[in-house]
Amino acid sequence: MNPAPFHGIFPYLVSPLDDRGRARERVLHDLVGGLIQNGVHGLSPLGSTGEFPYLTPEQRIDVVRTVVRAAAGRVPVVPGVAAYATGDAVRQIHALLECGVDGIILILQAYFPLSPSAVTDFYASVAEAVSCPIVLYSNPRLLGVDLTPDQIVGLSAIPNVRYAKDASGETGRILSILNRVGDRMKVFSASAHVPLLVLQLGGVGWMAGPACLLPRESVALYRLAVAGRWQEGLELQRRLWRANELFQKYSLAACVKAGLAAQGFDVGGPIPPQSQLPAEAHREICQVLGEIAADQSVQALVQAKIVGP
Amino acid sequence: MNPAPFHGIFPYLVSPLDDRGRARERVLHDLVGGLIQNGVHGLSPLGSTGEFPYLTPEQRIDVVRTVVRAAAGRVPVVPGVAAYATGDAVRQIHALLECGVDGIILILQAYFPLSPSAVTDFYASVAEAVSCPIVLYSNPRLLGVDLTPDQIVGLSAIPNVRYAKDASGETGRILSILNRVGDRMKVFSASAHVPLLVLQLGGVGWMAGPACLLPRESVALYRLAVAGRWQEGLELQRRLWRANELFQKYSLAACVKAGLAAQGFDVGGPIPPQSQLPAEAHREICQVLGEIAADQSVQALVQAKIVGP
Amino acid sequence: MNPAPFHGIFPYLVSPLDDRGRARERVLHDLVGGLIQNGVHGLSPLGSTGEFPYLTPEQRIDVVRTVVRAAAGRVPVVPGVAAYATGDAVRQIHALLECGVDGIILILQAYFPLSPSAVTDFYASVAEAVSCPIVLYSNPRLLGVDLTPDQIVGLSAIPNVRYAKDASGETGRILSILNRVGDRMKVFSASAHVPLLVLQLGGVGWMAGPACLLPRESVALYRLAVAGRWQEGLELQRRLWRANELFQKYSLAACVKAGLAAQGFDVGGPIPPQSQLPAEAHREICQVLGEIAADQSVQALVQAKIVGP
Amino acid sequence: MNPAPFHGIFPYLVSPLDDRGRARERVLHDLVGGLIQNGVHGLSPLGSTGEFPYLTPEQRIDVVRTVVRAAAGRVPVVPGVAAYATGDAVRQIHALLECGVDGIILILQAYFPLSPSAVTDFYASVAEAVSCPIVLYSNPRLLGVDLTPDQIVGLSAIPNVRYAKDASGETGRILSILNRVGDRMKVFSASAHVPLLVLQLGGVGWMAGPACLLPRESVALYRLAVAGRWQEGLELQRRLWRANELFQKYSLAACVKAGLAAQGFDVGGPIPPQSQLPAEAHREICQVLGEIAADQSVQALVQAKIVGP
Repeated sequence: MNPAPFHGIFPYLVSPLDDRGRARERVLHDLVGGLIQNGVHGLSPLGSTGEFPYLTPEQRIDVVRTVVRAAAGRVPVVPGVAAYATGDAVRQIHALLECGVDGIILILQAYFPLSPSAVTDFYASVAEAVSCPIVLYSNPRLLGVDLTPDQIVGLSAIPNVRYAKDASGETGRILSILNRVGDRMKVFSASAHVPLLVLQLGGVGWMAGPACLLPRESVALYRLAVAGRWQEGLELQRRLWRANELFQKYSLAACVKAGLAAQGFDVGGPIPPQSQLPAEAHREICQVLGEIAADQSVQALVQAKIVGP
Repeated sequence: MNPAPFHGIFPYLVSPLDDRGRARERVLHDLVGGLIQNGVHGLSPLGSTGEFPYLTPEQRIDVVRTVVRAAAGRVPVVPGVAAYATGDAVRQIHALLECGVDGIILILQAYFPLSPSAVTDFYASVAEAVSCPIVLYSNPRLLGVDLTPDQIVGLSAIPNVRYAKDASGETGRILSILNRVGDRMKVFSASAHVPLLVLQLGGVGWMAGPACLLPRESVALYRLAVAGRWQEGLELQRRLWRANELFQKYSLAACVKAGLAAQGFDVGGPIPPQSQLPAEAHREICQVLGEIAADQSVQALVQAKIVGP
Repeated sequence: MNPAPFHGIFPYLVSPLDDRGRARERVLHDLVGGLIQNGVHGLSPLGSTGEFPYLTPEQRIDVVRTVVRAAAGRVPVVPGVAAYATGDAVRQIHALLECGVDGIILILQAYFPLSPSAVTDFYASVAEAVSCPIVLYSNPRLLGVDLTPDQIVGLSAIPNVRYAKDASGETGRILSILNRVGDRMKVFSASAHVPLLVLQLGGVGWMAGPACLLPRESVALYRLAVAGRWQEGLELQRRLWRANELFQKYSLAACVKAGLAAQGFDVGGPIPPQSQLPAEAHREICQVLGEIAADQSVQALVQAKIVGP
Repeated sequence: MNPAPFHGIFPYLVSPLDDRGRARERVLHDLVGGLIQNGVHGLSPLGSTGEFPYLTPEQRIDVVRTVVRAAAGRVPVVPGVAAYATGDAVRQIHALLECGVDGIILILQAYFPLSPSAVTDFYASVAEAVSCPIVLYSNPRLLGVDLTPDQIVGLSAIPNVRYAKDASGETGRILSILNRVGDRMKVFSASAHVPLLVLQLGGVGWMAGPACLLPRESVALYRLAVAGRWQEGLELQRRLWRANELFQKYSLAACVKAGLAAQGFDVGGPIPPQSQLPAEAHREICQVLGEIAADQSVQALVQAKIVGP
């Protein structure tokens, strides 16, 4: 268990599976090693990028166990835990804690419409049944259920509910949360937000699929923010934004997998029935990644010595 | 394996769980026995009424195995199989076939948006990978993905895709399907439709949560339709419709569980974080069921000797 | 003012405008004359087919006045009145009553979300401020605000609220209404429903864009229903349904205008920025109309002597 | 016609009507005078705050003419022009230009779904048919049609399309636009965004209902941004945000009218059938405005001598 508070860049990892549906150990090991070497502050398997809804319970465990082994305690591992049922979430968390994770991102899935109090009950019941740090997750568009700023503020009273990540893209919601939670809760940006702006409002990091592909650039962005060098941060953010746009335009998991394949990681395609990206999308992803790598302003900021945490 | 084509009244069964999360065998046995005695033509565990998204893979198997045992071959058992991933659907079906089911209702869940061709691919790939009869299921509102009449017509070319159940509530979609599938495919009504009208258009039955609570009345409705006694059928349908309204007003699974509890079946409440129904809803459900039971016009039609199939 | 209750086939008229934005008098005159000659029971300008949101207040008056003149009292004229503001609806109705209309279809548009009680207030306030018969209209998908069966039943207590037309496509809503309004209110089918089924449930007619193009066939459908010849009615309905499908597939007003143009009425295209239909859609519309005209089963039923009201 | 580019704080004005539905001239005169005295940089009648959908064409002209007279050339007047039909938008703009407005905010309303190219056609056709500066407006949630960053960038090639205002609340969209339009287009914040962040990204101002109630504070926020005093700006923004939250929680126009009434402007309630706000909402609005007025940190920043444009 890593005692320092979570902060900084947490790439959402993809879930590369082999033909038998097992986690590809070597690929995940290489990916994790490279990300840590490039300075990321933590790792999040089983987010949207990790295609959690498409994995069986065994596959989820398999992926997380492999990541924990690869990380070898160098950075915290904080996987997503998604469930429809309260009891199922608790069971999943217990299994993941046995794998050695440092905390979890809690994701409520909804089938029948849920009342606001049922939503709050889910988060509170799960948090109180486990001991690890919890990151609240809200993503009304993909999940079909909202977790509002007011609910997040209320849940922040529970001791191990220490983080929130809002993926609505409405940056005002982050300000609404931060204005009211004081020191009880820290907030992470999602990629639908402009991460630098969230950091400026008081956010502590960015949990991000694109950071799998641009770890050094993402870490540089974070360090500029921590150092209060906002003007340079904004300059870097402007140039990195095209990657976020791309991953909103095409399907997120398919995009990150395509980008990693282009970087030499044999991660496979999105899990069927999700479609492979068309060739044109592959070209566009390669082009954007190439332009960022060749952008001298970006690379100067990446290589600058910034005093970070 | 039951060789006769599926038809008639298929109650969607609830999933009663005990404190350890196991299927309540006795309750399911009593429920199934009573339904068969009251004339239902098949049984469908793991539909929306069966709260499939809230069950683990083991719980799903457990519920279906219990139902198959209780049915003891007297009527076909056709459970729902819901999945995000193509491979997961195939695995689930194989496991259920080992339990002895006679066919399955195939339900696609979506997280990232799917293209129409990805949707068709899912259904076609799964159907071609298994041997049992498949019921296509469309429910755009609850599932976040549509399976259109055009897609259903296209999929009817696959030999074991022999049934469709549309839960959109738009009865014109049923006519669009029936106008084009000829004898290749049979269509069931969902409870969002007026079942008698679907039967009149050429539907072969009704897969229904409310039929758990009103099996004799539902069977009578079906028999009147088969006998072509439309005027009496409409009279009965009008009087039964309040039950459908009720189950749309409140949450479906919670309603059916509440009604069964009122009839003496110890099925428990909806799986958390779903809320228990308020006392007022319990009263309203009991009142509606009581009025139908006391309605002499209804009971006369239920007891009429109708030549059925 | 026509004292007989509204019933039967009410074609929704298109709004053909000339280059200066004035109603094309000759075209409307010919269209109205043809429809009446083919047996329609009333006329509804300014529905969705009439592109009401795209017309200025003056254009709305201009279209209705032209239709009233062309109808010359032979059938009732019942235009749509759409408004965001209560006062605006009342003003529009007064202006239309001066043109000589026999009743109106009341359509609430919403910008900011409205509470259910605000929705009811709109309908009740407008109905009580005018003297003519009111047809309630609900179309949650296009209008962004629902008028539920419960609200419709409540509003039926107002003496001049005598009709409802539900365009949700969910035929169960019609049954919910009819089960509770007794003789106080009559219900019309919209084209999203299967009209014959609505007539069978107790509906009194069909307000329909497609009836502009298929007036004789639509009237025959209605007459078969009134005569209780359901089997033939269903046969005719099955064959006419492709027209409804087509008008749901493409944009309704553009479709009806295209079909009328093919029949020789110079009605122009949809009002910009709505797109002209592609050539392929024109071909498909012509083909469907041609097939219905050439279908001997259809034409036999159209020419049958049916005792109508 | 005001030749300087639009920038800074543009309060969206309410539309106070008397019993006969005429603009309340005295109230608008007082409100406009006060706002200008408090430093606002322009005025926008007929936005959402101005309840444009609830006004007849005559009422719209009446409100704008009154505002132009009251402004007396001291600041530019840039009203909203909302239309479903291309021709109607052009006609409205011509009428408003005769009233003396300095530009317009162009708002597309949709009834039938529109293709992306039809959306672009609307904006391009209207812009090319008139001579004044155009502010593009996107608000997918309230308007039912999107105008995407890509479309906005494309339209920026038209000479008089010089501004855009995105009300989606997704601040990343603003960055997507600004990254690509260069000097051709300037961007305003809407109140669903955190205005200071938009200014930091390169936005030139804030068009805002709440600025009616907090003109001095809004102007101070803008001036801090222009002076590059981001830290103080953020401090002020944090304290003002509760007003934005409030106006998202309740209905925008009703809220602004309630707040103005509390400040002594006799603007009346929202136009029926919109509901009056409950007493509790009135109290909450008064409390928030009172707290901001009493907040010494806020008032110190408001009174600071900031070198502005």
